[in-house]
Amino acid sequence: MYTREALVELVRQAKRERKLTWGEIAQHVGVPEIHCTAALLGQGTLKPHQAERAAQLLGLPAEVAEALTVPPYRGGVSMPPTDPVLYRLYEIILVYGPAFKEIVHEKFGDGIMSAIDFEMHVEREPDPHGDRVRVTMSGKYLPYRTF
Amino acid sequence: MYTREALVELVRQAKRERKLTWGEIAQHVGVPEIHCTAALLGQGTLKPHQAERAAQLLGLPAEVAEALTVPPYRGGVSMPPTDPVLYRLYEIILVYGPAFKEIVHEKFGDGIMSAIDFEMHVEREPDPHGDRVRVTMSGKYLPYRTF
Amino acid sequence: MYTREALVELVRQAKRERKLTWGEIAQHVGVPEIHCTAALLGQGTLKPHQAERAAQLLGLPAEVAEALTVPPYRGGVSMPPTDPVLYRLYEIILVYGPAFKEIVHEKFGDGIMSAIDFEMHVEREPDPHGDRVRVTMSGKYLPYRTF
Amino acid sequence: MYTREALVELVRQAKRERKLTWGEIAQHVGVPEIHCTAALLGQGTLKPHQAERAAQLLGLPAEVAEALTVPPYRGGVSMPPTDPVLYRLYEIILVYGPAFKEIVHEKFGDGIMSAIDFEMHVEREPDPHGDRVRVTMSGKYLPYRTF
Amino acid sequence: MYTREALVELVRQAKRERKLTWGEIAQHVGVPEIHCTAALLGQGTLKPHQAERAAQLLGLPAEVAEALTVPPYRGGVSMPPTDPVLYRLYEIILVYGPAFKEIVHEKFGDGIMSAIDFEMHVEREPDPHGDRVRVTMSGKYLPYRTF
Amino acid sequence: MYTREALVELVRQAKRERKLTWGEIAQHVGVPEIHCTAALLGQGTLKPHQAERAAQLLGLPAEVAEALTVPPYRGGVSMPPTDPVLYRLYEIILVYGPAFKEIVHEKFGDGIMSAIDFEMHVEREPDPHGDRVRVTMSGKYLPYRTF
Amino acid sequence: MYTREALVELVRQAKRERKLTWGEIAQHVGVPEIHCTAALLGQGTLKPHQAERAAQLLGLPAEVAEALTVPPYRGGVSMPPTDPVLYRLYEIILVYGPAFKEIVHEKFGDGIMSAIDFEMHVEREPDPHGDRVRVTMSGKYLPYRTF
Amino acid sequence: MYTREALVELVRQAKRERKLTWGEIAQHVGVPEIHCTAALLGQGTLKPHQAERAAQLLGLPAEVAEALTVPPYRGGVSMPPTDPVLYRLYEIILVYGPAFKEIVHEKFGDGIMSAIDFEMHVEREPDPHGDRVRVTMSGKYLPYRTF
Amino acid sequence: MYTREALVELVRQAKRERKLTWGEIAQHVGVPEIHCTAALLGQGTLKPHQAERAAQLLGLPAEVAEALTVPPYRGGVSMPPTDPVLYRLYEIILVYGPAFKEIVHEKFGDGIMSAIDFEMHVEREPDPHGDRVRVTMSGKYLPYRTF
Amino acid sequence: MYTREALVELVRQAKRERKLTWGEIAQHVGVPEIHCTAALLGQGTLKPHQAERAAQLLGLPAEVAEALTVPPYRGGVSMPPTDPVLYRLYEIILVYGPAFKEIVHEKFGDGIMSAIDFEMHVEREPDPHGDRVRVTMSGKYLPYRTF
Repeated sequence: MYTREALVELVRQAKRERKLTWGEIAQHVGVPEIHCTAALLGQGTLKPHQAERAAQLLGLPAEVAEALTVPPYRGGVSMPPTDPVLYRLYEIILVYGPAFKEIVHEKFGDGIMSAIDFEMHVEREPDPHGDRVRVTMSGKYLPYRTF
Repeated sequence: MYTREALVELVRQAKRERKLTWGEIAQHVGVPEIHCTAALLGQGTLKPHQAERAAQLLGLPAEVAEALTVPPYRGGVSMPPTDPVLYRLYEIILVYGPAFKEIVHEKFGDGIMSAIDFEMHVEREPDPHGDRVRVTMSGKYLPYRTF
Repeated sequence: MYTREALVELVRQAKRERKLTWGEIAQHVGVPEIHCTAALLGQGTLKPHQAERAAQLLGLPAEVAEALTVPPYRGGVSMPPTDPVLYRLYEIILVYGPAFKEIVHEKFGDGIMSAIDFEMHVEREPDPHGDRVRVTMSGKYLPYRTF
Repeated sequence: MYTREALVELVRQAKRERKLTWGEIAQHVGVPEIHCTAALLGQGTLKPHQAERAAQLLGLPAEVAEALTVPPYRGGVSMPPTDPVLYRLYEIILVYGPAFKEIVHEKFGDGIMSAIDFEMHVEREPDPHGDRVRVTMSGKYLPYRTF
Repeated sequence: MYTREALVELVRQAKRERKLTWGEIAQHVGVPEIHCTAALLGQGTLKPHQAERAAQLLGLPAEVAEALTVPPYRGGVSMPPTDPVLYRLYEIILVYGPAFKEIVHEKFGDGIMSAIDFEMHVEREPDPHGDRVRVTMSGKYLPYRTF
Repeated sequence: MYTREALVELVRQAKRERKLTWGEIAQHVGVPEIHCTAALLGQGTLKPHQAERAAQLLGLPAEVAEALTVPPYRGGVSMPPTDPVLYRLYEIILVYGPAFKEIVHEKFGDGIMSAIDFEMHVEREPDPHGDRVRVTMSGKYLPYRTF
Repeated sequence: MYTREALVELVRQAKRERKLTWGEIAQHVGVPEIHCTAALLGQGTLKPHQAERAAQLLGLPAEVAEALTVPPYRGGVSMPPTDPVLYRLYEIILVYGPAFKEIVHEKFGDGIMSAIDFEMHVEREPDPHGDRVRVTMSGKYLPYRTF
Repeated sequence: MYTREALVELVRQAKRERKLTWGEIAQHVGVPEIHCTAALLGQGTLKPHQAERAAQLLGLPAEVAEALTVPPYRGGVSMPPTDPVLYRLYEIILVYGPAFKEIVHEKFGDGIMSAIDFEMHVEREPDPHGDRVRVTMSGKYLPYRTF
Repeated sequence: MYTREALVELVRQAKRERKLTWGEIAQHVGVPEIHCTAALLGQGTLKPHQAERAAQLLGLPAEVAEALTVPPYRGGVSMPPTDPVLYRLYEIILVYGPAFKEIVHEKFGDGIMSAIDFEMHVEREPDPHGDRVRVTMSGKYLPYRTF
Repeated sequence: MYTREALVELVRQAKRERKLTWGEIAQHVGVPEIHCTAALLGQGTLKPHQAERAAQLLGLPAEVAEALTVPPYRGGVSMPPTDPVLYRLYEIILVYGPAFKEIVHEKFGDGIMSAIDFEMHVEREPDPHGDRVRVTMSGKYLPYRTF
């Protein structure tokens, strides 16, 4: 069996050698792009048949497929992130976090947006002033238990 | 002139007394809800005419309107956030951050999603299994300068 | 309106003066003891009729009742906790956390115990070798969204 | 002799190969599930005869059994935990910690719940609205020494 | 009622004005010197009759006596301590901690020295090469719960 | 020559194989138990003849004896300690530190207890209510230089 | 394929063996000195033809050239920097940061200097009182999105 | 006399009331813009005649002028900076720091760029693709003392 | 009685009004300059007759003199220091610390330089290439207790 | 070529085998003891002829001599230092830092003591009450640039 790091390294290597994109892998596996990528980077799980499809496409042994179905110890970014791509997400919390909290409570009540029953998409949004990164998140609203 | 904290406190008080929602204020001001709320919470600026409309609606003096046009020292969340609403956003970076970075580079190249030329929306998404919080972000793609 | 700290101070003072226990207040309000106490310590909300009952019992103005229904910025412990009562809970995570994670995944799959749809009780458990603190937690199992 | 990490890795590997669950191992060893698992993850000790039973079931040498009886350097989670399963426990301290402290003092006096003379159980609680994780903790009440 | 800080300040002031030593107060109260001092510095509690004796000696109102019986939020040193008197204790853990752990396990088994059922004394030990500070600690041995 | 870690590992291994206790080694070496153990754990030094006796008893080469006489980079605990045995010492500083400082100044003046000209003992103190860990520390009082 | 660290090590070794300066490499590659160096130190990317020129000059395989075109996880300094060369830059933010922010807002409005569409040069400035390091930065002004 | 914070607040208030820019103040005082602003923000000193000119222009008492000549405790940014304007400078160290160090050593030898004998300018650089922030720094090269 | 901060503020104010230097005060008090200054800044104590002389010179009440004889909670710099004057001392530890440790052990054995039985002087050393700050420290060598 | 760590390890080993002291090496190299030691511990550079002398004396290859002339990434102590020898230096900043800053400004003006144009010596100072460690530092005074 592989440690999580070894697993991720195997995936990255196979992806490079077979010249696959994360998008192609995700489409083949049948899971949204960022969720499939997260799983292959050791931050999520795939269902058995999805893991098998991923392993097949990447030419990796059955053992890898099995490993991809085991819940990992999540958390793949050391905080605050030093990489600018990730830091900008962090900055969005710093700047828009308080407003986000107010709006969620105003629209829903005392509760949160789930990060578990959660879906996320990243798309290229064409724009004459320069294309934009479009991120869509959808998380189930979870109200605090009341009595 | 007010300190930023005093300013925010004045806004909150006026909002409570006049029983306004952030949504109503934003609509009156003509600025997207979360951006208007962020500005009123001391994390952004409004244009002069927008600030005046906000001050009018909230019954606050011209000095407040002026203060709302001055760039603040941004950063309204101590990290990691202890509040669950904000922590879930933080967790999304921990779990989906590495995949986000891969996808951005795959779709765009070596660059980032701007958090400055940036727009964000929070909506209630009806769902038979329980309504969902829908967050849409759109940030300009900024490629690293090349030579 | 009161800041959260002022609110909590008012509650504590009234509780002392009226010689009430948290248990008596909770019973009167009709909310489990630790949840009622958390709300009165600024870490949760009460429903309007519950907040009114609490304010009445404590002899506090309607404004207090209203304030108790507003979602607070949660997080009332600086970490790691220096107080031994709280540190022991922290230590339980340090020591039993990894085993807890394994058991949850074994019994449920890839998901978590919710801290939002969550209930907690603290009781005195008589024991001939010295009474024990009995803590019961019940949190909804939330599976990671699959596709 | 093995380092603690090597020991844990041996256990995990044997468990996977023999397709055992933590629950099955615990039942065979005769120790509550989470305590047995904690010991096998290097966060506790077993008595000699329990360690032997564990080693036998897992097909590991006597040396492993002996190692499992040696008090480890405890602390298997880096804080704050990045994994959502563990973070939720951490969040429970942040939100319910102050109330927990009040209730313990009210019910017992000036003292703490022991994390040493301590027992913990995790069960699946069936629920029509979705099954729940039920955690029961029982720690001896330790009063501060008085004079 | 007083905040803990106000309480401690009152005690310090009264002690200075009445030119009392911590030792004299402790003797009058009938509690070991360091425990009595800790309580008066907001890090412990006294029994009602002890608190009354302390308040009487210091000329403080009954309210103070009552406050001294309420369990405080413990933890009166920010870590690492910057004051050299306290830092040396911290350094003792850094240097002798690992050996202390080994010796405790060797002499007792898998368990700890309680910091709750705990007693501590500080004395002046005459020595021809320069007097010494003698610290005696006695904490109950608590074995980890076994099954 | 060995790195400090390798040295400590050699010692631990030899101790296990020869089934020696730290107490037996210390007695043979002629150095108080915790000081001898600290040195063998890489947190102190032995005099040449003591190091030789230790090496002989443990069956280790002369090179090890020599290495045990070289002052190490001290500090063998990452703070705050996650292990409960060590954390309790840390907690004692948090709770009794301020009182300790007051008592030292009261009994001695403006100075500190040395952690260098320092001696420490750990004993088992029989007690009908459960045996106790007895720790005795004796550090030279060092007055601040005056002029 | 190489890890980023291995890649950087290969570059450094080849540079030493061929006795090249960063300046010579940059001139050959056709990219400003500090940007070229940053890329070769794993903090940036080169375009394919630039990467090839770099690899050729350094006598490194095509695989290295390819690796130099892949966006790295940026962030090559642990903060605060312990090295004096880097710490002085950090100190400049500590001392001149607040003034810098004021001037940027005064000259441009509510926005920032981009660190992505960014160019930097380091030159030797002859000076009779001792030569000086001259750093020139030019970053695109990015105004906050307005509505 | 004023605390540094009070001093800065007085300056800001006077600047707002007299509708002066930092640039106008600097020109009047005869000190480069960012250095003059830094001094007025409590991060530097002015010479007596410069301080008097500043105080005069701002209509502040002689006491303020005197206070502006006293070396302050420097360091006006908590790190990492949460404000995006300042964070980008921090990010530049993260990304270009290692290359900067290499270039300085290559061009000068073993030494540093002084942050004390240091000058800095911020200008608006017109650009058809969007204006740019141009920062120029000039710090004396200080070689490590050799023997 | 004064808090330490109030005391220091009183001293600073009196020093300014009477236009005294630290050097003049120290000479009058009869204590080395930096030790006298440290005491007046709340980081040390004076003997009663020294404190009286200081209070007299500064025109402060007897209460201040008394307060200056009470051991303070030492530690007047938040670390790492942001002020460049103090940071350079910190940097000296970063760069020369390991060599300092080697030299101390080589010249003295296993022990330390005391920071308690310690004396420090700061002088202006004329130099044709620019005057120098000359710091002299003299601390008693304390050998580790041996057995 | 060697990594810095390997280089330092080589030096230490050779020094042990040849039974040289840092003082002997420094004298042979012709560089003050602590500066020579710092360079050999990877915290400084030697001039080529000095590096050759050091390598010769230690019997190390020319490659080592060359490596000793390359500016290292400085910073060899993790802060706060856990080793008591180094911690005492750190404590000196905590306690005497604020007074040091005052004295430097009083004697010199608004500037700092350089840690680059800097010299340091450690000597054994005989003293009938116990020998003392004498540290002398001499750093060039650098005034802040004025205009």
